Amino acid sequence: MVHLKTDVCKLLGIDYPIIQAGMAGGPTTVELVAAVSEAGGLGTLGAAYMQPSALRQAILAIQSLTSKSFSVNIFAAETKDDFSRLDEVQLALSPFREELGIIDVPSSFQSPDWSAEQFAVCLELGVPVISTAFGCLPPESMARAKSSGVRVLAMVTTVEEARLAERAGVDAIVAQGAEAGGHRSTFSLAEHSMGAQIGLMALVPQVVDAVSVPVIAAGGIVDGRGLVASLALGAQAVQIGTRFLIAKESGAHPVYKQAIFDSTEESTVVTKSFSGRPARGIKNKFIETFEQQCITSLPFPSQNTVTKDIRAAAAKAGNPEFMSLWAGQSTRMLTTEKNAADIVSEIIEEAENLFSPK
Amino acid sequence: MVHLKTDVCKLLGIDYPIIQAGMAGGPTTVELVAAVSEAGGLGTLGAAYMQPSALRQAILAIQSLTSKSFSVNIFAAETKDDFSRLDEVQLALSPFREELGIIDVPSSFQSPDWSAEQFAVCLELGVPVISTAFGCLPPESMARAKSSGVRVLAMVTTVEEARLAERAGVDAIVAQGAEAGGHRSTFSLAEHSMGAQIGLMALVPQVVDAVSVPVIAAGGIVDGRGLVASLALGAQAVQIGTRFLIAKESGAHPVYKQAIFDSTEESTVVTKSFSGRPARGIKNKFIETFEQQCITSLPFPSQNTVTKDIRAAAAKAGNPEFMSLWAGQSTRMLTTEKNAADIVSEIIEEAENLFSPK
Repeated sequence: MVHLKTDVCKLLGIDYPIIQAGMAGGPTTVELVAAVSEAGGLGTLGAAYMQPSALRQAILAIQSLTSKSFSVNIFAAETKDDFSRLDEVQLALSPFREELGIIDVPSSFQSPDWSAEQFAVCLELGVPVISTAFGCLPPESMARAKSSGVRVLAMVTTVEEARLAERAGVDAIVAQGAEAGGHRSTFSLAEHSMGAQIGLMALVPQVVDAVSVPVIAAGGIVDGRGLVASLALGAQAVQIGTRFLIAKESGAHPVYKQAIFDSTEESTVVTKSFSGRPARGIKNKFIETFEQQCITSLPFPSQNTVTKDIRAAAAKAGNPEFMSLWAGQSTRMLTTEKNAADIVSEIIEEAENLFSPK
Repeated sequence: MVHLKTDVCKLLGIDYPIIQAGMAGGPTTVELVAAVSEAGGLGTLGAAYMQPSALRQAILAIQSLTSKSFSVNIFAAETKDDFSRLDEVQLALSPFREELGIIDVPSSFQSPDWSAEQFAVCLELGVPVISTAFGCLPPESMARAKSSGVRVLAMVTTVEEARLAERAGVDAIVAQGAEAGGHRSTFSLAEHSMGAQIGLMALVPQVVDAVSVPVIAAGGIVDGRGLVASLALGAQAVQIGTRFLIAKESGAHPVYKQAIFDSTEESTVVTKSFSGRPARGIKNKFIETFEQQCITSLPFPSQNTVTKDIRAAAAKAGNPEFMSLWAGQSTRMLTTEKNAADIVSEIIEEAENLFSPK
C-alpha cells in the first residue's frame, strides 16, 4: 500500500509529501513559502535571481513567519557569459523594444553570478533544505551543507543525471518530467539541444530503479490524483509549481495568473528564447516572433540578461505577450486563485479519498 | 480506492484492464493477440497496413486460437497522396538506398487505402472491438459498428480530440501521452507541426475531467506501477505497446527487439521521416541523416509509401539503422523477452501488491 507519510516527509521535516517548487523571479514571495510550510508542505524560495542581501532579508522574513522547515532553490550551472553574437540577437529583439517603447538599451551586459554568496547566506541563516537546478552543489559546498545538517535536493531530467546527483551526495532527487513548467533542469546542455524531455510517467520508475536515495516527482502534478499516481510510480513526494504560482500569496503578475487560467494543455512550448536555457511556458508573441527569426539564442545566462529589460517593461505595462509565462501542461485543471493552505489541504484530502474504500 | 476490475473491463469483455496496443507493421502476430486475450487482457491486431484478404485470414486465425475478446486497430485519417515534392525526397533517400544496395527504385508510387474494406471485414467476422488512430470511424461506419454491438475506441492526444471522439460516439477513449512509442494519434496535422505532446501525467486527468466515456491511459506504461498510477489519475485501463513488442510472440524483428533492450529513456525522438506523420522511435542513422538534410517529409501516407523499400531492405539485412524502431520512453525497464501471458500476470501481480497493505 502506498502511504502519504513517506520517508521524505521525515527527511525534510514536513507533514505532507508536497514540495512547492522554487520558481525564480517573483512568484515565491515569503508569504507563499511560509504559508506552504505552515500548511505542512515544504515552501521553497526561488532565489536564483536574488541578490545575496535580498536573499538574506527574505530568509529572515520567512523565519519570522514560520518555525517550520522550508527550502531555498538556487541554480548550480557552471555559467559563463557569451555575448559574441549579441548584435544579431539585439536586432531580433529590437521590434519588441519598439513595441514596448523601450528607449534606453544598454550596450554592454554582464550576468551576475551570486550562487556562492547565496549558498553562504543559506548556510549562515540555517536554511533547513537547499535545492538546486541545472546541476548539484559544488563538492566543497555539498560537504559543508551535509556537515551542517542541511538537506540537499537536486532536480534531474534523466536517469544519468539522477546517478550524478546521487554520487554528488544529495539526500533526495527531484525527477522533472517533460510536463513541468519553467526551466528544464538539464545538467549539461549542447548548443542546439533542448535537453531530454521524458514524460513523468516514464521518468519516475526508471529513476527510482536506478538510485537508492528517495525520488520526488515533478511536472504536471496539480491535485491528489497526481500525488497518488506519483507515489504508485515509486516517488515519495511531489513537487508542484504552477498550482502554487496561482496561489493568492504568489507574487506572479495578475496578467500572468490570468494567462494560466486562460490556457489549456496545448498552450505551452519549450523555448530558449527568454533565457538561453530550455524552459516551458505559454506561447506568446515574444516566443513566436523570436523563434520565427531562426536566430539561436545566446547561451544561458547571457540571453536572460539581454532580455531582462523587455520582460520588465512588459510586466510594468501588464502585457503578457512579452513576459515569460512559465507553466506546466496541466493548466486546464487550474481555474481559481486559492490560499496556499487550501491548496495543500485539498490535495491531501483528495489523495486520502483515493486511498479509502469507496 | 482504485480497483483493477473497472467498467472498461466489462465494456470490452476482459478480465484485466490491460490493452495490448495495435502496433502496425508486423509485431502483432495472431499468436501475440490471442495470447494477450487468453491471459485476460485485450489483444489487438495492428491491421493498418494489412490487405483486406490478409486481415481476414488473421482475424480467422485469432478466432481459432481464442474465444475471448480482442480488438483490431485501423487508421482513420483522411489520407490523400501528395508526391509533388517526390524528387527532393528521393534525392534525400538515395544515400540510404545506396548503402543498402537497393537498385530497383520505383519511379511512381500510390498508397493503398484499405480502411473501408478493413472495416467491412471486421464487421463481417464479428470482431468484438475496433480501435482507430488519427481520428474516429466515419459517421456511417460508426453507426454500423454501434448497431452491430462492436465496441469502438479512438486514440487521442489532446482534450479537444477527446471531445471530438466522444461526440463521434466512441465507447472509450485512449489518451496517448507524449511518452508513447509509434505514431502520435494527432487527428488534424498542420504541415510543419509535430502534433501535441502532452505528458500522460498531465493528459489523463484533463481528459477524464472533459468527457463522460471511460479513459484508457497509453504511453510509457510497462508495469504494475504504471497501471496503478493510471488508475489513480482516473483512467480505467492502460494500453501497453513497447512491452508487448518485445514479447516472445511478437513479430518484431530480432534486431528491433535488441535495439529496445539496448536503449534508454533518452534514446527516442519524434520524427516524421519514416511516414510523414510524427512517431516516436529510437534514433538511428535514417532519422538523423534525413533530418540533417532539412527536407520536409512528404505528407502521410506518401512518405511511408516512398520509404517502404528502404525499411524492407534494412529488415532483410538485419540492419537497425534504416528500420523504423518505434518505442516509448520507458525502455530501461525492458530487459528480457517473455511470454505475453507472463507479461500480463506480472503487471497484475505488481499492481495488486501496490494495493495491498505492506
